[in-house]
Parts: sequence; C-alpha cells; structure tokens
Amino acid sequence: METSQLTQYVDFDSTFAAFDLIAVFLFAISGALAAIEKKYDFIGVLVLAFFSGVGGGLIRDAIFIQAGPPKAVTDSKYLIVIFGAFLLSMIFHKPLRRLHRTILLVDAVGLGTYGVVGAHAALQGGLVPLAAILVGVFNATGAGIIRDVLLREEPIIFKPGQFYAGAAIVGTVIYVTLTVVVKPGDMWAALLAIAAAFVIRLLSVKFNWRTRPILKEN
Amino acid sequence: METSQLTQYVDFDSTFAAFDLIAVFLFAISGALAAIEKKYDFIGVLVLAFFSGVGGGLIRDAIFIQAGPPKAVTDSKYLIVIFGAFLLSMIFHKPLRRLHRTILLVDAVGLGTYGVVGAHAALQGGLVPLAAILVGVFNATGAGIIRDVLLREEPIIFKPGQFYAGAAIVGTVIYVTLTVVVKPGDMWAALLAIAAAFVIRLLSVKFNWRTRPILKEN
Amino acid sequence: METSQLTQYVDFDSTFAAFDLIAVFLFAISGALAAIEKKYDFIGVLVLAFFSGVGGGLIRDAIFIQAGPPKAVTDSKYLIVIFGAFLLSMIFHKPLRRLHRTILLVDAVGLGTYGVVGAHAALQGGLVPLAAILVGVFNATGAGIIRDVLLREEPIIFKPGQFYAGAAIVGTVIYVTLTVVVKPGDMWAALLAIAAAFVIRLLSVKFNWRTRPILKEN
Repeated sequence: METSQLTQYVDFDSTFAAFDLIAVFLFAISGALAAIEKKYDFIGVLVLAFFSGVGGGLIRDAIFIQAGPPKAVTDSKYLIVIFGAFLLSMIFHKPLRRLHRTILLVDAVGLGTYGVVGAHAALQGGLVPLAAILVGVFNATGAGIIRDVLLREEPIIFKPGQFYAGAAIVGTVIYVTLTVVVKPGDMWAALLAIAAAFVIRLLSVKFNWRTRPILKEN
Repeated sequence: METSQLTQYVDFDSTFAAFDLIAVFLFAISGALAAIEKKYDFIGVLVLAFFSGVGGGLIRDAIFIQAGPPKAVTDSKYLIVIFGAFLLSMIFHKPLRRLHRTILLVDAVGLGTYGVVGAHAALQGGLVPLAAILVGVFNATGAGIIRDVLLREEPIIFKPGQFYAGAAIVGTVIYVTLTVVVKPGDMWAALLAIAAAFVIRLLSVKFNWRTRPILKEN
Repeated sequence: METSQLTQYVDFDSTFAAFDLIAVFLFAISGALAAIEKKYDFIGVLVLAFFSGVGGGLIRDAIFIQAGPPKAVTDSKYLIVIFGAFLLSMIFHKPLRRLHRTILLVDAVGLGTYGVVGAHAALQGGLVPLAAILVGVFNATGAGIIRDVLLREEPIIFKPGQFYAGAAIVGTVIYVTLTVVVKPGDMWAALLAIAAAFVIRLLSVKFNWRTRPILKEN
C-alpha cells in the first residue's frame, strides 16, 4: 500500500525512462571520445557512439528477449540523444575529456540502473530468474564488450582490474533476488540494487580493489 | 496515378529482388577473395562469402526488424547464389582479382540499393524514420563491419578514407526523407537515392575526396 | 512403425536433451580454461564459459530461427550447467587441462550432435533445407567463432588445420539430406550423421588430415 502510493507520486516508469536516456547519452559520449582518440572519422565516431549508447539494450532485446524491434529503434528519443552526444563530442571533445570524474560517477549509477532495467525486462519477457541476472549484467556491460570488439581491443572487462562487471553482478543479483523471493515492491528492490552497485563501484575505485587473474604467475 | 502505372510496367519488386541477388553475389565474391588472400581454407572462404553476402541483411532482419527468420534463410536463392560465388572464387580467384574496376562500379550501385532496401524494410516493420536511416546504412555497410571483425582487422569504414558509408548515408537520408515527407512514389525516391549514393561514391574515388580524423595530429 | 516404436523406447528427445547439456558443460569448460590461460579474471572466465557453452545455440535461436527467447535463457538447466562448469574450472583448472583426450572425444561427438540439433530446429522453424545445413554448422562451430572473436584471435576454424567444421558439415548434410529426401525416421538420420562427423573428426586427428589454404605459397 505504502509502496504503491510512493510509486504513484515518484512516477517510477518515467523516472526510469529519463535515467535510461541520460545513461545512453553519457555512454554514447564515452564511445565517441574513444573513437576520436583512435583517429577515426565521423562515421567511426557515429557508429561507436551508437553501439556504446544502446549496445547493451540491443543485446538484451535482440538476442535474449526477442519481443519485436529493440526499443532503440522504435522510440526516436534514443537516436536523437545519441545524435546529440555525437555532435557534442565532435565539437567539444577536448573539454569533455576533462569531465572524467563526472563520467565516472554517472557511469557508476548507470551500471546498477542498466542491470535493473535489463533484469526487469527479462523477467517481464518470461525468462527464468537466473537468465534475468545474465541479461541485466549484459545490459550493463554489453556495450563495452561490443565497443572493445569493434575497436579491436581485448574486452577490458575480461581482464583483471577494478570492480566493474562485479558491481553490476551484485546489483542485478540483489534486484532479481528481492523481486522474485522477497517482493518488496519493484521500486525498493531497484533502488537498493542501484545503490549497492554504485557503492561497490566507487569503493573499488577509491581503494583500488582489484580482481585477480585466476591463473597465477609462475 | 502515373507513378503506379510506371511501377506496374517496370515491376518494381522483382527488379529490386534481382538486384539484391546480384549485390549478394558480388559482395560474397569480394568476401571470398579477402579470405583467400588471408590464406584461409575452404571453411574460412565459405563463412566469409556468407557474411559478406548477407551480413548486412542479417543485422537488419535479426537485430533491428525482428519479424521472423531472415530472408537469407527462408529463400533458397540467397544461399545458392552465395554458394555459386564461393565456387567461382575458389576456381577463378586469380582472374577475378583483376575485375577491380567492375566490382567498384557494382559496389557503388549496391551501396545505395542496400540502403534503400534496408530503410524500406525498416519502415514497413514499424520502425521510426530515424531508425530506418540507421537500418539502411547498416544494411549497406554491416557486411563490411562483420567481415573486418571476423578477419580481426579494424573496421575500415571507421577510419579516414574515401566516402563509402558517407555515400550510403546520403542515399538513405534522401530515400527516407522523400518517402516520409514528400511521398513521390516509392520508385522515384529509390532511384534518386541510389543515383545520389552512386554519384557521391564515384566522385569521391575519382577526385580522392577523403574523410578526416576528428582528432588532428599534434 | 518399427522406427517410431524404437523411438518410444529410447526416448529420443530426452536423450538429445541430456546430450545437449553434457556438450554445453564440456564446451563451457573448454571456454573457461581458455580464459584462465589468457590470465582473465572471474568475469572473463564466466563470460567465456557462457558463450563457449551456448554461443552456437544463441546464433541459431536469435539470428536464424527467431521464435522467441533462446532455449539457453528460458530453461534454467543451461545456466546452472554453465555455472557448474565455471566453478569447476576455477577450482580444478590444472587437472582439467590434462583431460585433453577425453575432451577431444566428447567434442567429436558434440560436433555432429550440435549439427543435428541445429538443423532439426531450423527445419522445424520453417527454414529451407540449405539454410538448415547452414544453421546446423553454425550451431556446431559458432561458439568457437564467438570465443575467438572475444579473445581477439583469428577464428581458428577459418585457417588450414585438421577437419573440424568439415566434419560438422558432412554430418549436417547427411542429416538434412536423409530427413528431407529419404525420411528414414529422425533417429536413424541423426545417429548416422553423428557417427559420420565423429569418425571423420577422429580420423583427421589420427592421420593428421588437413585442409589447405586456397592460395598457394609463391
């Protein structure tokens, strides 16, 4: 009762939708900047902005959920936001590069949010809970994998480093467990999951917590 | 009235279908030749011929439009044409290599045609106009991206060079704009778009018009 | 009559399902071991185990057949088996490495089985016979291609070497030909196809039969 009232006031879905677009915008900028750094032309910058912005959502919708065309191509807002990020990066790539700290923070919020959005869509699409975790994590990290494959680099999330995918996994596991087992209302589960991923990500950057290779050096 | 009569006589759809198969055939040959150049065996040549021939269409149908199995696997003609291109390349790869000029010309027609075919299918599949442009451009250039990723090369269309994806973009934008805004009949829009992409592509080769990296050298 | 009775006793579908899971398990282990070898962290090992285990099935279901979410995410057994393979590889990667011979044998059975499973699903999904062969071969070899692309290696099946994809092709062609033309009952077609792929694969290892590059050295 209390939860549903709160949800009514805060307008859960449109809050999510707004955040989704902000995350797409920032991820698109980070992809565009990487392409500019690589000395690509405007085509390369545009393609990288696109896949960095909505690559995770494309994997989610096109590979795993398969309920019609992906949101990225049925709702114009996504492509408009990506095009805006592209133009902005083309013009202001030098000052944008200095926003490193801001991007890190928003990226850390995006990590959990994308995990929740993906898992939510997967559960609604009839996937099993374990698969919802998988889809959530791919939604959060898939764009980075696509970007690295296109840039011909070894996907950075595979290699030892600060917790990134790990933070997304913890957030998504929390969301799916709460939603399927405890059922405290979608919004509380989401907020808790996003907060957990955010905190883990920032702590791992601050204290340089790192994953380790499974195979030890000889 | 006039347009629809013309369309009746020229038989728009089957003209398109024939051209589609010719383009698949030539793109498959160019993929096969690249694989042969790379010292691959017949498997590598076959896989590259396949993805170079229908890769753009697979991205279009499987990732973006999602209305059942891709045309490439529900209509035998595509696989037969690809297999023909594969056999021909296996036997005649030396003389074929010299057809550089012909391949360039047909490729320049294919660029606009694939853009139009992709955008047309996207609009019919209920995608928004901006997304139709995107799908058209991927239809025209996606096979090349897949080929480069499989060959473990940096996708050539990302890097500065003569207008290629640029020509596809102009053609697709013309087609979608005309179809959605002006509505002069599908056929005129298509012909104009294909001609524009063709001319831009050839002029860029003839006068060596080149795109530039966004990041200037220091 | 005779065939359908036999099928009843042996319980064709659940035999297949059991084998499918065993193959997923072993392919996931081989992907996990490759990731460990590459000095990846647990994320890299998990992602590689996943794509090596079900990558071929994902290509089959998501790109070619497109009849709803892939089996790998609607049936928990697949993800549980992959997670088991992941844990086992994390703990026992040293001794597992020595099971080379066993993995080779099971892989050789899996090659034909995956080809049959893929072609069977494609025919049921309304694809043309030629496409069913294609889908079968991708089902058998697609995971390896994805793994190599993610590990930033040239896909090994493209390069000259012992018959691998070749064995899958022969098996799948036998299965589709028998099923579409001769119709001896699904089970006999499947067993013959799997046996053929298995024998060709093992003979090619034993006698070091190799494919050759199409382009000869100068």
